[in-house]
Amino acid sequence: MAERPVWEQIGTSFVHLYYQRFDSSRVELSALYVSISLTLMLHNSKEKQFLLFLNLHHKQSLPFQKIQHSITSQDHQPAPDNCILSMVVGQLKVDNDPVMGFHQLFVLKNINDNWVCTNDIFRLALYNFA
Amino acid sequence: MAERPVWEQIGTSFVHLYYQRFDSSRVELSALYVSISLTLMLHNSKEKQFLLFLNLHHKQSLPFQKIQHSITSQDHQPAPDNCILSMVVGQLKVDNDPVMGFHQLFVLKNINDNWVCTNDIFRLALYNFA
Repeated sequence: MAERPVWEQIGTSFVHLYYQRFDSSRVELSALYVSISLTLMLHNSKEKQFLLFLNLHHKQSLPFQKIQHSITSQDHQPAPDNCILSMVVGQLKVDNDPVMGFHQLFVLKNINDNWVCTNDIFRLALYNFA
Repeated sequence: MAERPVWEQIGTSFVHLYYQRFDSSRVELSALYVSISLTLMLHNSKEKQFLLFLNLHHKQSLPFQKIQHSITSQDHQPAPDNCILSMVVGQLKVDNDPVMGFHQLFVLKNINDNWVCTNDIFRLALYNFA
């Protein structure tokens, strides 16, 4: 069986670690970011659209107790500046709310021998249903 | 009204141009790419998953006559190496097929005074419904 490309191995490992930490011990997520990371978390609803530029402090205090992510698909590519681009599509369940779809993308960069996330865009997919 | 950030202006212009050309004159899409661009187009169905690494030649000969994209949301961020990261969620209609959701992301880079796409990941969203 052909070896998977290295960017796919790194991207897949990051995605696995990211959601595992998000679901089980959110406080440990910070190790996956650097101080310059840009995080954009968007929540759409039919009534309102609002943007939250979140830093990790905010992410640690997101307004729910439990969250569980499940990944539908993930795609990875090598990107400029030796980065890796990862697109994730999945579903999440927050506390006792109904399951919702989400899209998230990451730019990963190797800084001091660690792969960290320099960009993170998250969006709930509440009404993109054909 | 506050000026929108420059990366958002560039990202929005690119996204507008990209889908306009895709829908009306696909042959002109090539100007938005460079020879090193990576394009990954993925089609999921319950029966099969297959990847097509497409170059522009392939994109010009996609197996349909008409396509129409409509954008549900787009988000942009500055990324490493002076790039811009764009995530697009939308719907598309191909010929007489039913409307389908899609996700697409771009990495944009200024090369010789032109903003071009160095990375492009596209995925149909056929079964990520909560």
